[in-house]
Amino acid sequence: MSDQPYVFQATCSAPVNIAWGKRDTSLILPTNSSLSVTLSQDHLRSLTSAAYITRKQLGTFPPDRLWLNGEEEEVKEGGRTARCLAEMRRLREQVEAANPSLQKIASYPIHIASENNFPTAAGLASSASGLSALVATLASLYALQDHGVSTSELSRIARQGSGSACRSMFGGYVAWEMGSQADGSDSVAVEVAPASHWPDLHALILVVSDKKKGTPSTAGMQRTVATSALLEHRIRDVVPARMERITRAIHARDFDAFARETMADSNQFHAVCLDTEPPIFYLNDVSRAVIQLVTELNRASVAAGKGCVAAYTYDAGPNAVLYVQEKDVAHVLDVVLRYFPQSAESFPDPFQLGVDPAGGKGALPEGFNEAVIPRHELGAVARVIHTMVGDGPRTLDSSTEGLLDGEGMPKRVKQ
Amino acid sequence: MSDQPYVFQATCSAPVNIAWGKRDTSLILPTNSSLSVTLSQDHLRSLTSAAYITRKQLGTFPPDRLWLNGEEEEVKEGGRTARCLAEMRRLREQVEAANPSLQKIASYPIHIASENNFPTAAGLASSASGLSALVATLASLYALQDHGVSTSELSRIARQGSGSACRSMFGGYVAWEMGSQADGSDSVAVEVAPASHWPDLHALILVVSDKKKGTPSTAGMQRTVATSALLEHRIRDVVPARMERITRAIHARDFDAFARETMADSNQFHAVCLDTEPPIFYLNDVSRAVIQLVTELNRASVAAGKGCVAAYTYDAGPNAVLYVQEKDVAHVLDVVLRYFPQSAESFPDPFQLGVDPAGGKGALPEGFNEAVIPRHELGAVARVIHTMVGDGPRTLDSSTEGLLDGEGMPKRVKQ
Repeated sequence: MSDQPYVFQATCSAPVNIAWGKRDTSLILPTNSSLSVTLSQDHLRSLTSAAYITRKQLGTFPPDRLWLNGEEEEVKEGGRTARCLAEMRRLREQVEAANPSLQKIASYPIHIASENNFPTAAGLASSASGLSALVATLASLYALQDHGVSTSELSRIARQGSGSACRSMFGGYVAWEMGSQADGSDSVAVEVAPASHWPDLHALILVVSDKKKGTPSTAGMQRTVATSALLEHRIRDVVPARMERITRAIHARDFDAFARETMADSNQFHAVCLDTEPPIFYLNDVSRAVIQLVTELNRASVAAGKGCVAAYTYDAGPNAVLYVQEKDVAHVLDVVLRYFPQSAESFPDPFQLGVDPAGGKGALPEGFNEAVIPRHELGAVARVIHTMVGDGPRTLDSSTEGLLDGEGMPKRVKQ
Repeated sequence: MSDQPYVFQATCSAPVNIAWGKRDTSLILPTNSSLSVTLSQDHLRSLTSAAYITRKQLGTFPPDRLWLNGEEEEVKEGGRTARCLAEMRRLREQVEAANPSLQKIASYPIHIASENNFPTAAGLASSASGLSALVATLASLYALQDHGVSTSELSRIARQGSGSACRSMFGGYVAWEMGSQADGSDSVAVEVAPASHWPDLHALILVVSDKKKGTPSTAGMQRTVATSALLEHRIRDVVPARMERITRAIHARDFDAFARETMADSNQFHAVCLDTEPPIFYLNDVSRAVIQLVTELNRASVAAGKGCVAAYTYDAGPNAVLYVQEKDVAHVLDVVLRYFPQSAESFPDPFQLGVDPAGGKGALPEGFNEAVIPRHELGAVARVIHTMVGDGPRTLDSSTEGLLDGEGMPKRVKQ
């Protein structure tokens, strides 16, 4: 026996998700239901390795350690990582108690390394995929699912790390029921439909810079939201029925209904942001131009006897997410890039559709009003990320994809 | 006797007005009440002369003629000028019938010349002041008020030319009650308080260009508004109580309450515009920056134990109207011009306050966050018009201010 620590490592990736309805909780108001689409990890993902470390001599108690994108961060007591770790340890302890033959590893120190493959500038909340990957990785490390722990239970724990992370524990189309228990124990995400139910839903993320925004004095959203007469009406009278309609549209793969409800929900979310005191603005002139472009694309399509070809949705920022069916995605991309041109670098064309980053190579639809917005300069939309609906967390091979080395230390550290 | 026509001319000016609540009728939905402030004709006005023409031989029937800003326009049958003319002639006929000694002039052809002293680019609806000036001028020409016709009755006629014109028939603070009669006969404006009740209310109009807007395909506002769940709630549950609170604030000269209600109403109006399908955007990034600047000015003032120093309101466009009390106007202007600099031409300083058009000569208030928005370039706000609350239509001396010559023809014609 050597003095070397024994390192056992597990590695998982987890996806980002795009939500409806639930966004209002960023305004600290509960809604009854929310929906989300999980996006493919082929393009956007958090990758996490976790290892527990056994030493011959455990006289010292080394702490848990965490590296995010190559930089060590403190695992703060009461913080979201520590909360999830504690919950996962508790589950492992239960499993160990019920299975006396199992190794007692719940108390061993843990090293965690996590990386996102998308830049912060993409405006995508990394906490959903990051906390989801953490929980999936610890579940794998602790072999919890082999011992009967459900994805639903893991989703409940991920939620305690970051609300939206509970949704990234599932692939496809996901609902988050808020539950009725004061302790949130029945507030979990459930699958509405797997990605395979409606697999041809693509997403175009238009990353919009907001240089002109300055640093507004945020006067506390909770307080300002208390001033919106419309918000309460939305939450109580509008959102629940809309979530039901979107669920029905997903079940029926009815893109036209899906698109209309998605856009209406996005518009109304930003409307109530404007109706607060002082008003909250997330959309800027480029966001507005994207909306006008999608409106015109849909108007032309509806005039031609077809339904909507694209749907926009905006979270708490100027970036657009456009949903498009696979059959329309090359055409819609070509028009989007015509008005918001990209370089080969800012639009890498991961699906190899052969769409020119400068756009405008195809014909515009019949009756399309070319003057709907001006053609913007390179950079007005900083990048276009093309992805699609995808599956839930993936367990990967630590020997090839693991982020920790044989000592339990991160392989890549920021200099 | 010569063959020369006899020309009798009257000349009036009328003001523009800025409204709350009533803006929603641009979305073709009636509200119970709306309020407005009439702005001073010293800075913004429509000037109108009208003449009736008597000829020895009336064998030919010369038509009514109209010149707007020096260009002749047809007096279209059923158009708003023709409607107002017909109503005013009807009143004159009644007066003539009741007073047999009066000259029978109601049937004589009329020549009208009208000019606005503000450019279309100012984004101010010229129809309110224009139709109000037309009605005031015809009332003067026909001596109707000498024969007991009330301003209220004239306001009812101006409304038939242009809804908002009924408000410009009064100075100061005005309410427009929608009335309950199907024919609109009880839909008239009434004075809430004269300008002299609260005479130190200044208005800064920030004219914002919207070059990037393109030509969106307006899909018919009526139809789109039918899709907003929030609009109905606003109209029914929010606006009536707010109009009462603004009226109370005007009566009490309570600027802080006035400002808060004004800004909340503007925000909510634009919120419901966004909540339509497809969404309607009037505010752009510059409008948004002005809102953030006013929010910060007020935050600093409230933090210093004082109330709001400025209130913004936006109609169906990106231009801001800021209300400021006289005591604060030099200070607020200095900060506004610091962030949205002007030239001597685009900010002529009509009150001779000595404020530098480039702004920023005075100190910022204690605790003001300088980074709230970036300092914009010259031209982001195209011009700043400084005016204040003012009186209703004025009857002027046609011999010095009349727009028609001795032949009843316009003195100034566009070449």
